[in-house]
Amino acid sequence: MAEMMKAQVVKAPYQMEYTEVPIPEISDDEVLIKVKVCGICGSDWSIYTGKYAADKLPMITGHEFWGEIAKVGKNARNLKVGDRVAVDICLTCGTCYFCRRGDGLLCETFTQLGIHTNGGFAEYVKAPWKNCYKLPDELDDYTAAFVEPLTAVIHAAQRMDAKIGSSVAIIGCGLGILHGALAKARACAPVIVIGDDPLRLETAKKMGADITINIHEVDDVVAEVKRITGGVGVDYVIEAVGTTQTYEQAFKMLRRGGKIEAFGIAAQGDTAALEPYEFVLGEKKVSGSCAGIGNNWGEAITLLKYGIIDPRPMFSMAVPLAELETALKEIREKKNLVKVFVCPELKERVYF
Amino acid sequence: MAEMMKAQVVKAPYQMEYTEVPIPEISDDEVLIKVKVCGICGSDWSIYTGKYAADKLPMITGHEFWGEIAKVGKNARNLKVGDRVAVDICLTCGTCYFCRRGDGLLCETFTQLGIHTNGGFAEYVKAPWKNCYKLPDELDDYTAAFVEPLTAVIHAAQRMDAKIGSSVAIIGCGLGILHGALAKARACAPVIVIGDDPLRLETAKKMGADITINIHEVDDVVAEVKRITGGVGVDYVIEAVGTTQTYEQAFKMLRRGGKIEAFGIAAQGDTAALEPYEFVLGEKKVSGSCAGIGNNWGEAITLLKYGIIDPRPMFSMAVPLAELETALKEIREKKNLVKVFVCPELKERVYF
Amino acid sequence: MAEMMKAQVVKAPYQMEYTEVPIPEISDDEVLIKVKVCGICGSDWSIYTGKYAADKLPMITGHEFWGEIAKVGKNARNLKVGDRVAVDICLTCGTCYFCRRGDGLLCETFTQLGIHTNGGFAEYVKAPWKNCYKLPDELDDYTAAFVEPLTAVIHAAQRMDAKIGSSVAIIGCGLGILHGALAKARACAPVIVIGDDPLRLETAKKMGADITINIHEVDDVVAEVKRITGGVGVDYVIEAVGTTQTYEQAFKMLRRGGKIEAFGIAAQGDTAALEPYEFVLGEKKVSGSCAGIGNNWGEAITLLKYGIIDPRPMFSMAVPLAELETALKEIREKKNLVKVFVCPELKERVYF
Amino acid sequence: MAEMMKAQVVKAPYQMEYTEVPIPEISDDEVLIKVKVCGICGSDWSIYTGKYAADKLPMITGHEFWGEIAKVGKNARNLKVGDRVAVDICLTCGTCYFCRRGDGLLCETFTQLGIHTNGGFAEYVKAPWKNCYKLPDELDDYTAAFVEPLTAVIHAAQRMDAKIGSSVAIIGCGLGILHGALAKARACAPVIVIGDDPLRLETAKKMGADITINIHEVDDVVAEVKRITGGVGVDYVIEAVGTTQTYEQAFKMLRRGGKIEAFGIAAQGDTAALEPYEFVLGEKKVSGSCAGIGNNWGEAITLLKYGIIDPRPMFSMAVPLAELETALKEIREKKNLVKVFVCPELKERVYF
Repeated sequence: MAEMMKAQVVKAPYQMEYTEVPIPEISDDEVLIKVKVCGICGSDWSIYTGKYAADKLPMITGHEFWGEIAKVGKNARNLKVGDRVAVDICLTCGTCYFCRRGDGLLCETFTQLGIHTNGGFAEYVKAPWKNCYKLPDELDDYTAAFVEPLTAVIHAAQRMDAKIGSSVAIIGCGLGILHGALAKARACAPVIVIGDDPLRLETAKKMGADITINIHEVDDVVAEVKRITGGVGVDYVIEAVGTTQTYEQAFKMLRRGGKIEAFGIAAQGDTAALEPYEFVLGEKKVSGSCAGIGNNWGEAITLLKYGIIDPRPMFSMAVPLAELETALKEIREKKNLVKVFVCPELKERVYF
Repeated sequence: MAEMMKAQVVKAPYQMEYTEVPIPEISDDEVLIKVKVCGICGSDWSIYTGKYAADKLPMITGHEFWGEIAKVGKNARNLKVGDRVAVDICLTCGTCYFCRRGDGLLCETFTQLGIHTNGGFAEYVKAPWKNCYKLPDELDDYTAAFVEPLTAVIHAAQRMDAKIGSSVAIIGCGLGILHGALAKARACAPVIVIGDDPLRLETAKKMGADITINIHEVDDVVAEVKRITGGVGVDYVIEAVGTTQTYEQAFKMLRRGGKIEAFGIAAQGDTAALEPYEFVLGEKKVSGSCAGIGNNWGEAITLLKYGIIDPRPMFSMAVPLAELETALKEIREKKNLVKVFVCPELKERVYF
Repeated sequence: MAEMMKAQVVKAPYQMEYTEVPIPEISDDEVLIKVKVCGICGSDWSIYTGKYAADKLPMITGHEFWGEIAKVGKNARNLKVGDRVAVDICLTCGTCYFCRRGDGLLCETFTQLGIHTNGGFAEYVKAPWKNCYKLPDELDDYTAAFVEPLTAVIHAAQRMDAKIGSSVAIIGCGLGILHGALAKARACAPVIVIGDDPLRLETAKKMGADITINIHEVDDVVAEVKRITGGVGVDYVIEAVGTTQTYEQAFKMLRRGGKIEAFGIAAQGDTAALEPYEFVLGEKKVSGSCAGIGNNWGEAITLLKYGIIDPRPMFSMAVPLAELETALKEIREKKNLVKVFVCPELKERVYF
Repeated sequence: MAEMMKAQVVKAPYQMEYTEVPIPEISDDEVLIKVKVCGICGSDWSIYTGKYAADKLPMITGHEFWGEIAKVGKNARNLKVGDRVAVDICLTCGTCYFCRRGDGLLCETFTQLGIHTNGGFAEYVKAPWKNCYKLPDELDDYTAAFVEPLTAVIHAAQRMDAKIGSSVAIIGCGLGILHGALAKARACAPVIVIGDDPLRLETAKKMGADITINIHEVDDVVAEVKRITGGVGVDYVIEAVGTTQTYEQAFKMLRRGGKIEAFGIAAQGDTAALEPYEFVLGEKKVSGSCAGIGNNWGEAITLLKYGIIDPRPMFSMAVPLAELETALKEIREKKNLVKVFVCPELKERVYF
């Protein structure tokens, strides 16, 4: 009989069950990981509420996880039981049109652990051994749970490829906070974070933003960004909200010749009204992405190990696995929470 | 009393006068050029009809020109009377926010010879000596008039930066023909040129296009491009028409992860309905520009000198300066004309 | 009992045996390929003579091969018996320091089919299914054998990243011929190929070189390149010989600010005397590589399919598998041979 | 009669005279600047001792200067008397082969203020108005003198283009300290600074270096760097000393696939023994430069304004203009001095 583990299973929209399920069986190419910490992401809410990936249910979500290796498939190399590892959650085919061109995030059979298949809101999760990245001792348990979100931010920064000393505005103060921190850590300035939540904007400042704008405190956020930049507009805008309105704003606050880094996921089919004239005579550029892949994991670990990104100002609380559904709702109600962690081994909440 | 020259002066919208005006006086930093050939561009029609730059009238248009140096300002170096030269038509300040970042086309006081100040539809034109590029003997008189349009196409190709062996669709078969030629000359394939004029599409094929699509012969141009590319879409699309509809099509025929090179100038304020979702999860990219600048002149001369681009299939006819207005109208009526040249020294038309 | 096949086995330096060996067994992740054509490369001579990879003997060499799929491992997708395929010969681990950074050619356990493990001088060869690239019908049997050498040249061109209209000198007229062809196909000019063999230099011209220099016909090849470039030197030099002297020449014929693409493999430990001053105040750059990998196969197939590279001027002869050793010696003696193919199904020689 | 000013004139090698000379006359395209602070650079010693630019003597050196505008040529825009400005010291022709390709530092008539023509060790200096960059109030007087050295470091960083989270070793702890600071400020880690002076290495740590290596305290600096990087070598090495030995070391401590950024100026004609094998099969890359130009001034000002680079740990002392020669000798004798400033208005020394 299969060994069992505790897990939070999304059975159907708005139905999450804390239950026992079999510990995953691993193949020769996989490892079994005992989950230590798994951060809660906005997409966990989207899956829970059926807005995203509803066809994959029932499923265990949670993709911002790390853990200790509990079992090692026989093809694995350089990994052993007890190793602390973060996991590249992307599963790609390697041979489709997109994979062969290095665009793994566009793989025709793209799958992510915790988003399309079982993830980290459980005692154990399995993963391909090739996707594991060892965590150095310098990363404490909660910081280690920032590896995955940081990979998405690094990937965007690589696409954006901001020049030394260029100005960057970030619309949104969820992952926008981390985008701001990384922009500053890449020698951009001024870094402007735009949001609607005073606590999050304050956190953004602690993590590197030079200027924050609370949209409730200015008449016109585009005018405000123009004012700050001497009428020119910013060199780069990272859109990290995902509405057509904020995309339209992003184009307006961007300087001629600047670049939009599209990160916030708007609904498929929703259109923004954008001027081709601005692409041509304004030379405004666009690139985009919304996730990390491959060695972004190695890069994220390096940034956290050397303190280039210090996520601690974002820590809000850690909860036992049993409290996931409650925590999801609390975050939704915005009880002054930035990042909330789930720890299967925790018996009661920890506040930071 | 000033020496006089013949010139075609746009006095007001739809009023072009073939008249005598003073030969331009040059400063120490300028040269006087005796115009040999000046190609007719779509923007000459736009200025003639008052759709563009109406506030600059009266003016001599014509920016696709080359000529022989007739007088040399005393600060000029390496130039002498009789030198055949093409001229970078861009006048930039060198110190504004944009110039300092290498974005000369966005200069706050951006001016182009023949578009914002007097150009080549005259016996003489003046230009800064630093903007002159000597023409090698290998370039015959009409090929030399392709330097300027080729610079715009090269600049776009540099922005697009297409990878070896990538597919490229070009929407439009005006300068689109040259875009197709250069895409092929940069080892892209297949190169697909999309247009509505059989003669121009045939010319596009002669100049390197692997495939042409006549929009009147297919039900759905996007579907056709998808079909050609095995359902994937093309790696790059150059939009060279300038309507919001063709921009929307461009995004639809582009593969995920591909890039739009925006070249066609849509009206300011006109918006295309574009999906931010496609920027983020589709990773579709945009860059744009619509003119050459600086050493694009040197590059264009090299491509023509070594036959990498051979524009001769595009030659239609050459007319005397006196016939400019007539020729503009003939082109407009599409009398099987691709490129028409104006030559101040010509007494009667030459057909190719 | 295992099924047998004919193969040419290098038993020890200078000992090649035409013999019967078992047809390779394939795993679930592999395919068996019936070899149709395998080109002879200089490295086949190096292995045969024990200068390279002597520790791998006995071995079947041959890496410029393609063939038809004869058997398909059960994990393979989109491949079936009878498919014509070229094969990425690189086997990499995917998780070492270098693989994770995208530097697969530097993989700590880097292995190439036909160089470190059995290759194409046999009736059959096995390969991972993920390494197979389908060949379109447009590629005739001999052209298809150019896919692998072209991948190496494409990879170098990607590293070099030559700008439109820049000058390129290639030292060496082995693969240098293909480097010249691709430089021209990327809109570089003038393309100068430097060598010592009139037939090969003539071939280089047929395939796109603007200028060739026979080192036996000039006093000083560096001076000659300087002369051609108006005293400036060339923008790029591809070193495709592999001696320290030619590397030193390469640096001297390079213009200030130009780039060396290092391709020719000099002996390990041999040093060239290079001036750091030229790196700093001369801003001379270096990059290098000597093989293709991954989608370079897809790119090579595209260039051959669309005729962007037409290798036919390089075809010299095709020989039966039994004649490999003889052919190796004939090439060595330079009997006017450029590319020689080995075809297991051929009964007698074909001359082109 | 011309107005006079105090200046330090290098009359001949080892002959510096503190004397009165005429205040420079400006043209319509120039401004006159009252020098506030001018840092002392190693090249000031080289010119003073006749090792560099001896053919330019007599001359006023000093290129790390800033000042207040005292007079404005009539073509100048956006500048007025009293403006605090730093000055791009590079004078380029704009039309030579190199300038037209954007390689201004290689201009055929390249000239730098304070190196080839009169500079900042005087009460006044003149400069083209287009070369002036206004200093924001956030920059204190001594920090403002770091703009010029920082431009050189920024230029090198742009050439190096280090990826997020990559390791960087810097050989040399003169400007190497600033290279280390900027590498860290671009999210590289670990940043290793190698030198021979405990004070300077301590300063390097204060400014961002993760690790410093005193070459007198290790047996083998290459082995030490290999040890730190787990045997792999570093991703990037900045050579900032300028000897052939340190260049050879740089190549040895570099990982395969890594890049040398050549910055230290070795003597012309001196050669390092480098293995072409390492360029090809090791894929080791090289780029180089040793100065800033153009908007590197704007970028440097931004980094200092926003505290991304804080040079204060490098400040050692400021001396009156009269004491320049003494100070040069003191620096040479290494009296625990890092950066020494010269201030024409200062009456006595300031120690930091």
